[in-house]
Amino acid sequence: MPQGKPSVVPDDGLTTRQRRNRPLLMVHTGIGKGKSTAAFGMALRAWNQGWPVGVFQFVKSAKWRVGEERALRVLGDSGEGGTVTWHKMGEGWSWVQRDIGSSEEAAREGWEQVKRDLAAETHRFYVLDEFAYPLHWGWIDTAEVVSVLRDRPGTQHVVVTGRNAPPELLDAADLVTDMSKVKHPMDAGQKGQRGIEW
Amino acid sequence: MPQGKPSVVPDDGLTTRQRRNRPLLMVHTGIGKGKSTAAFGMALRAWNQGWPVGVFQFVKSAKWRVGEERALRVLGDSGEGGTVTWHKMGEGWSWVQRDIGSSEEAAREGWEQVKRDLAAETHRFYVLDEFAYPLHWGWIDTAEVVSVLRDRPGTQHVVVTGRNAPPELLDAADLVTDMSKVKHPMDAGQKGQRGIEW
Repeated sequence: MPQGKPSVVPDDGLTTRQRRNRPLLMVHTGIGKGKSTAAFGMALRAWNQGWPVGVFQFVKSAKWRVGEERALRVLGDSGEGGTVTWHKMGEGWSWVQRDIGSSEEAAREGWEQVKRDLAAETHRFYVLDEFAYPLHWGWIDTAEVVSVLRDRPGTQHVVVTGRNAPPELLDAADLVTDMSKVKHPMDAGQKGQRGIEW
Repeated sequence: MPQGKPSVVPDDGLTTRQRRNRPLLMVHTGIGKGKSTAAFGMALRAWNQGWPVGVFQFVKSAKWRVGEERALRVLGDSGEGGTVTWHKMGEGWSWVQRDIGSSEEAAREGWEQVKRDLAAETHRFYVLDEFAYPLHWGWIDTAEVVSVLRDRPGTQHVVVTGRNAPPELLDAADLVTDMSKVKHPMDAGQKGQRGIEW
């Protein structure tokens, strides 16, 4: 339970107000569970603030995150908080009309849209779900991603999830949490189950 | 991304179906962020399955989790998924009419209600938010908690969050994730901010 008190006051020339509203780059990595789940939990807070939320799912299967997607869509349509825009690589990105050949090409196409949205300040809170994978695999250039994220305009918070997030991304991030597996039911023969894994 | 495949098939006399639907006890602990946030993210999946969700917030301040609470209440009232019942220690538990003297007494009172709800199978997914603290502080007997959770009837999933979860609870859990802090903005003088911390 962080109490909202910083441990040091930085000499960065910013006012407290500017510092308080500084846009954050957050990374959830590690081999344990909860990386994406915590990112979608954060999206609930962003929604509650009335912020436009943009989700980019960099995963192959369209079946992933069905519960989170439905919940966030219902929230976005409720008229009570912010809007929610949900983009899925697994079904082919909605803005792409032609066939995309490979996952690599699809991942790059997703990143191009993230760049456009950041430039246009389309959302205030971004979930780049499983985005660490295409970076780790070298499909997308990490140096470019770091540069685009560092120079993004306005107050746009970004959370990136996935195992093996590249060190350059962790260096650039304001917040990094490593989810480590202590014990997992699949180790004991438990199969993934409805309502828990998806 | 667990693929839903167990690494071993246990010799426990259960069918695959029984094993698949086995109720899980999950613990999110460690000093990093995301413990509660991931639990509320899981609650989205439970809601999507139409399961009754029960949240017990074992924290003093009623200001905590306002975003998550509003989101889950909107979802619970949407008629699209499961119901959501949200209990807060910070405002005095709703079922308690008299004044509760201390946080210790309030925590015990919360646990008594969790026991009643488990016995009655009131919910199918429980978030016992920050429940690790009253156990760690010895306000509630961990052995009793482990015994009640082990013997709970039906298919009731339970996730417990908080730092310093007692070893006996981790032993009893099916899934344990340790959230470790790699980097936190407050270390660099960043104050907690709206939409991110609450």
